[in-house]
Amino acid sequence: MTSTERRPGRLMASEIAEQPQVWNRLLEHGAADIRAVARRIADSTPRFALFVARGTSDHAALYAKYLVEVILGLPAGLVSPSTTTVYGAQPDLRDVVYIAVSQSGGSPDLVQSIDMARKQGALTVSVTNNPDSALAAAAEFHIDVMAGPELSVAATKSYTAELLALYLLVTGVADSSSDALDRLPELGEQVLASDAHVRDVAQRYRFAQRLITTGRGYSYATVREAALKLMETSYLSAQAFSGADLLHGPLATVDPQVPVLAVVPEGEGGTAMLPVLEQLAERNADVFGVGSEAALRQLAGGIVLPSGVPEELSPLLEIVPLQQLALHLAVARGDDPDTPRGLRKVTETL
Amino acid sequence: MTSTERRPGRLMASEIAEQPQVWNRLLEHGAADIRAVARRIADSTPRFALFVARGTSDHAALYAKYLVEVILGLPAGLVSPSTTTVYGAQPDLRDVVYIAVSQSGGSPDLVQSIDMARKQGALTVSVTNNPDSALAAAAEFHIDVMAGPELSVAATKSYTAELLALYLLVTGVADSSSDALDRLPELGEQVLASDAHVRDVAQRYRFAQRLITTGRGYSYATVREAALKLMETSYLSAQAFSGADLLHGPLATVDPQVPVLAVVPEGEGGTAMLPVLEQLAERNADVFGVGSEAALRQLAGGIVLPSGVPEELSPLLEIVPLQQLALHLAVARGDDPDTPRGLRKVTETL
Repeated sequence: MTSTERRPGRLMASEIAEQPQVWNRLLEHGAADIRAVARRIADSTPRFALFVARGTSDHAALYAKYLVEVILGLPAGLVSPSTTTVYGAQPDLRDVVYIAVSQSGGSPDLVQSIDMARKQGALTVSVTNNPDSALAAAAEFHIDVMAGPELSVAATKSYTAELLALYLLVTGVADSSSDALDRLPELGEQVLASDAHVRDVAQRYRFAQRLITTGRGYSYATVREAALKLMETSYLSAQAFSGADLLHGPLATVDPQVPVLAVVPEGEGGTAMLPVLEQLAERNADVFGVGSEAALRQLAGGIVLPSGVPEELSPLLEIVPLQQLALHLAVARGDDPDTPRGLRKVTETL
Repeated sequence: MTSTERRPGRLMASEIAEQPQVWNRLLEHGAADIRAVARRIADSTPRFALFVARGTSDHAALYAKYLVEVILGLPAGLVSPSTTTVYGAQPDLRDVVYIAVSQSGGSPDLVQSIDMARKQGALTVSVTNNPDSALAAAAEFHIDVMAGPELSVAATKSYTAELLALYLLVTGVADSSSDALDRLPELGEQVLASDAHVRDVAQRYRFAQRLITTGRGYSYATVREAALKLMETSYLSAQAFSGADLLHGPLATVDPQVPVLAVVPEGEGGTAMLPVLEQLAERNADVFGVGSEAALRQLAGGIVLPSGVPEELSPLLEIVPLQQLALHLAVARGDDPDTPRGLRKVTETL
């Protein structure tokens, strides 16, 4: 093994860079199977969608919850696995589509939740990166996100692969689609090109002990995932708030000493963030943006996202510079984001 | 006005101390009306429950979501108001009971969400501390939590009044109850007596910049609310994690320099926290507990809760010493928790 191969964050860097290929593979080789599952869901005419997931995959589930509410017009919820695994709840799940999301497919509490849901009458779907996993076997339908082996403990490519799989699934149920899908891998390559810029930006946060991330709507999932990634790799305290929730209390903790990362893409969610940016400016907060050129004009700095991307697909692109930031910040701080202290790739919770 | 009346945190202190009386009032004068609404909900045989709320009230809604899942065996979800207010989602809400929770009843996004839900076929309920509010008028049924005027910006008595009202509502739908209810005000007085001890404990966190709160099950709402209270009043960065989620990444940020507040009551949720306490001990974390005598024996310090309280009612008691901690810490730091910087009592988000 050469010294280059032992470079800290080598695995995470290559898995971040691989994302456009992963999306391309899923679009070319996975979309048909996902659409078939989507048709089965549509045929069952569900009344309610429930998602169960933990960690990074929980943020993919949060994104999918917005898709279900907005695109399918169905109420949706994120299940707390503990209601089943700790309290033994046996809810009536007829007319429910129950979707578990997990990179490894190995977490026992998700398997137990799917087993319960199936017994209680739900149509069950698992979305994993491992078709041989216990979770894939437990659910009636399995969707493989085809991200390939993910070796870095910090999940990156499996997250955006989960987003894309869930997008294909929900739009498949609605029998809708977007022309922008074909351009997605190419747009991903464009966003990846910010890497050198992001490495410079990371220097600004070299000594930060805490940090706030904020966004609204579909981008709320992005800022939750960005905060988790920064916590896992750089051991700083990163807190994610929806722009609306930030104004209910946590705004009090914002001052010029606490950096803010705001995600403000084109579309309604980004527009709804503009009053939040104004309030942050009133407090002289240091806000770095990831988003549309127009929104970033209000801020001191940021990463511009490609224009013309439908808001529902923007989370796939938004997270990429924030993954790069987590990587470069960890390396700048002398840590190796591929093997964060105290974490394993599969977390077994009961 | 005398100097005593201008004491920082005077309002918050008196509202914390008032809680047993508030519960007593609600049990004596509000329970019958709540049970009547509960019967209307039961008669409508709902299939799903959705909650919409923000800030402190969102934590009361989270508690109620667990109650619905475990006690009623119904799937439940927390609605993101933005799917309606930002994206214009019009979900099919037939067979849904849709419950908005808000101290003031004044937030326009909740009113808009209730208006939408009513139009879309849900049975709508608002739970507020103001029967003359817009939200009370918008919903088909209104539940008054009868906490009386809350003058401190940091909500305390309205939070536990919301918990109790939601407990009465959900158990009313199930046509069940608990003998412990009658003892609740007296148990609250017992817990309040920890005040002097909590004031000493606050000195330990005088210079902390960040802090982690953790709990599982019903107590997850408690630790979310405790973190918000600490952020609002003491401007420190407080992060809440379910015990299970803590093991998925954020554990990496825990070291002996980051204080942890763990809520570990009697019952299944507290028992499920024991492996989390072990992992925290392995990292030499500084853990202060609020909970059962048995659980606290594993920790260096803590506040013992009265024994024999059903787990579902424990959140009313658990939060009290944590409210006291937020108060005393803010005062020790030279702040006035009654008027935190940058916050207003009614937050208007759209």
